[in-house]
Amino acid sequence: MKVYFEKSALMNAINTVLKAVPSKTNYKILECILIDARQSQVVLTANDTELGIETTIDARIETHGITAINAKLFAEIIRKLPDSEILLQIEDNTALIQSENAKFRIMCDDPDTYILLPQFNKDHSIIISQFVLKDLIRQTIFSIAVNDSNPAMSGELFEVRENQLRVCSLDGHRISIRKVELNDVYPNFQVVVPGKSLSEISKILTGNADSEVRIFFSKNHISFEFDQTIVVSRLIDKKYFNVDQMLSNDYETCITVNKKILLESIERSTLLVKESDKKPIIFNISQNSMELIMNSSLGHMRDEIMVQQYGKDIMIGFNPRFMIEALRVIDDEEVQLYTINAKAPCFIKDQNESYIYLILPVNFNQAI
Amino acid sequence: MKVYFEKSALMNAINTVLKAVPSKTNYKILECILIDARQSQVVLTANDTELGIETTIDARIETHGITAINAKLFAEIIRKLPDSEILLQIEDNTALIQSENAKFRIMCDDPDTYILLPQFNKDHSIIISQFVLKDLIRQTIFSIAVNDSNPAMSGELFEVRENQLRVCSLDGHRISIRKVELNDVYPNFQVVVPGKSLSEISKILTGNADSEVRIFFSKNHISFEFDQTIVVSRLIDKKYFNVDQMLSNDYETCITVNKKILLESIERSTLLVKESDKKPIIFNISQNSMELIMNSSLGHMRDEIMVQQYGKDIMIGFNPRFMIEALRVIDDEEVQLYTINAKAPCFIKDQNESYIYLILPVNFNQAI
Repeated sequence: MKVYFEKSALMNAINTVLKAVPSKTNYKILECILIDARQSQVVLTANDTELGIETTIDARIETHGITAINAKLFAEIIRKLPDSEILLQIEDNTALIQSENAKFRIMCDDPDTYILLPQFNKDHSIIISQFVLKDLIRQTIFSIAVNDSNPAMSGELFEVRENQLRVCSLDGHRISIRKVELNDVYPNFQVVVPGKSLSEISKILTGNADSEVRIFFSKNHISFEFDQTIVVSRLIDKKYFNVDQMLSNDYETCITVNKKILLESIERSTLLVKESDKKPIIFNISQNSMELIMNSSLGHMRDEIMVQQYGKDIMIGFNPRFMIEALRVIDDEEVQLYTINAKAPCFIKDQNESYIYLILPVNFNQAI
Repeated sequence: MKVYFEKSALMNAINTVLKAVPSKTNYKILECILIDARQSQVVLTANDTELGIETTIDARIETHGITAINAKLFAEIIRKLPDSEILLQIEDNTALIQSENAKFRIMCDDPDTYILLPQFNKDHSIIISQFVLKDLIRQTIFSIAVNDSNPAMSGELFEVRENQLRVCSLDGHRISIRKVELNDVYPNFQVVVPGKSLSEISKILTGNADSEVRIFFSKNHISFEFDQTIVVSRLIDKKYFNVDQMLSNDYETCITVNKKILLESIERSTLLVKESDKKPIIFNISQNSMELIMNSSLGHMRDEIMVQQYGKDIMIGFNPRFMIEALRVIDDEEVQLYTINAKAPCFIKDQNESYIYLILPVNFNQAI
């Protein structure tokens, strides 16, 4: 095998597949990138058996072949080589990597032992833009449960209903829901995608609004195809929660508030919260004003924000982190908060429910 | 005490003194910033007993007073408050910190127990620009010895000889020397300044070429006075090494080489060096060419650079990190390396010796 690459193209391709190289693995071969130059283009593959990534690049192939090279070392060498054409030549078990006068010789592995990406029936597919998919993930990924006993909570629900895609995540204290319109009508179906796969995919997506992603679904796998890249992830084989049952349109109080001002005030209050303790941020809503109260062993904070209030006064407490994480991913300038009482879920949502953030309140000491 | 601050001025002053707040200390009071508003301006002080920093800011003082407030919490609160005027008001043991509607109340400490900066006789002083001092530190600090049994090695020699300031650091494997001309002639003297103090000072210096630093020396202390700030450090009470004895102008080979190309090639070679092993970078200099060779368990690198060579051929090995750290702080486009043989010190220096970097070579396996 003897192939000449353009450095930046090779570097981009390596950076793309690196997201699927496991940091720890029992299969040493998976620490490698598979480099396949048997056809007219070069295909790079990495696979941690849950997530696999394959990307294709143009290169000048002098002798066809296939090899597997330690991903981390290969990436570092390419990054540090001069910005010139890069030669990769395999002889026996040694890879020669050369650019200008700089020559590296490192061991390579047996490509025959590499675990290839799963082939699966592409039962359904939808098309959305890279921009929308990247946003959907960013706006929901924070509320999956980490290390939870229920595997479904470590994933996100991707649900297609006619011409709508709905993405949900929940962790027992809160639910995040985002909904987008699709350009076509599709058969209804739903799958649960591992959160880890989604966060790696979102790092590869350019976020370009003009560039499409085709998403294929089967019973056990999902694949995302865009640009020169295919990302395949296993699905979580568990039934997801009945989210609709947890939602409600009832409220006793609705406030409209400037998002940035509210977010900054809550963030500020967390300066008084040490990592270990779970102090609530208390909203005291009355007469078109919202008082924010935080009491901890470090000190006290009080702040006051003007709001538009519909309905009765209420005093309600929240884990400040849950409020912060939801508010950070809402792009609207003003948000609506809907509450019933100090023990019922609070909803942050827009008029047409393109987003819904449900957050459970927490108890707080009334004697503040 | 009741004082109104401009937020950015207060934040800058806090960031300046924070460098001297100890992360761990047996004196709880030293985790505080001392805030002294007894005069017409406000003085902030932090002190870890080795290094102390004092900075003065303008403020609107309504009631004079003095207090001590936990440095980390105070800094975080000020940083997160709205960009408006900030009120600091002390009542009993509580500090009220307010900006717009946001009010924090935190405990404050007894300022009488604070350990003030040492007062000392300012026997000598010199004046240099912030730019030059910051550069001097950056260009030498990397070769002090960390955790060495010899305390003098953990500091830098500051030596004034007539109208020259020479700064030296060494760690047993290498010596770094920088020399600058002063605008005046001063009596000769030398002190050893703790490396830790110097690296904190260099973070505070703006690096402005038009702004002066006045450096005062006494037997046990050094102080740096610039802008609105005074930094005081203890000195290391040890005799420094006779550096001049270690220097030499003899050489058998001198090469002139492009600094950037040499540095990048050595940096590249370290990709093959795992943290634990100590593989040398080998320079094989012959016929106006320098071959760079690295062999490790991970692989092999060879590179070739054109050089201008005077004198005999030589093959010599170095700890690549020592070469990298010296080359990184040299601003010249081309550098001269002077060698005698594979066991004698190598010198990197310019014509008028404004910098001298001495690096000891290491043994290497000739059978490469």
